[in-house]
Amino acid sequence: MENCIFCKIVAGEIPSPRLYEDEYMIVIRDIEPKAKLHYLCLPKTHFALLSEMDAARAEIVKHIFATIPTLEEKLGLQDGYRVIINQGENGGQTVHHLHVHLLGGEKLSDF
Amino acid sequence: MENCIFCKIVAGEIPSPRLYEDEYMIVIRDIEPKAKLHYLCLPKTHFALLSEMDAARAEIVKHIFATIPTLEEKLGLQDGYRVIINQGENGGQTVHHLHVHLLGGEKLSDF
Repeated sequence: MENCIFCKIVAGEIPSPRLYEDEYMIVIRDIEPKAKLHYLCLPKTHFALLSEMDAARAEIVKHIFATIPTLEEKLGLQDGYRVIINQGENGGQTVHHLHVHLLGGEKLSDF
Repeated sequence: MENCIFCKIVAGEIPSPRLYEDEYMIVIRDIEPKAKLHYLCLPKTHFALLSEMDAARAEIVKHIFATIPTLEEKLGLQDGYRVIINQGENGGQTVHHLHVHLLGGEKLSDF
């Protein structure tokens, strides 16, 4: 989608090293890390909110959650991590392209 | 699973009002809320970690994420919310039965 920074990253228009990539998603580092390790899983197709869910998007979300555990060692998350999705205004969502945060590399504080 | 508090809640052995229930999951309130609204989505079958993922569990995770947006109004989350899954030691996982936190009802702080 035009003017979506994550679509531009997916398209390679904004350079960002891909720690993982497959047909449906990429994993990059968050440029403002909130923990020692902080990654973003981005679906390649644009949608902003879980509330825009449909069958195809549900498959993508399933794929992301099935892929995350396969990346734990590669990403240094084998001692545990936190998965976060911020939705809308109250959730503090800053980029309106669904993304899954992975935080770890240290003992995280309580929420 | 024996001695799993969430299995006991799912089985009705520990009473906890169910705000939503279907074949695969229930939604309850967190008894130690970290936000004005704080819910837990619990799969009815026991598994602890995303890293124990298999095809059947991936379907359950998909179901949970496809169901959450249908509950937004009912749960008072229509203005946005945060989805959190804590995994393992570094993630601060306290109960070893996979659960999806939903926090909202107010503007959440940055992570």
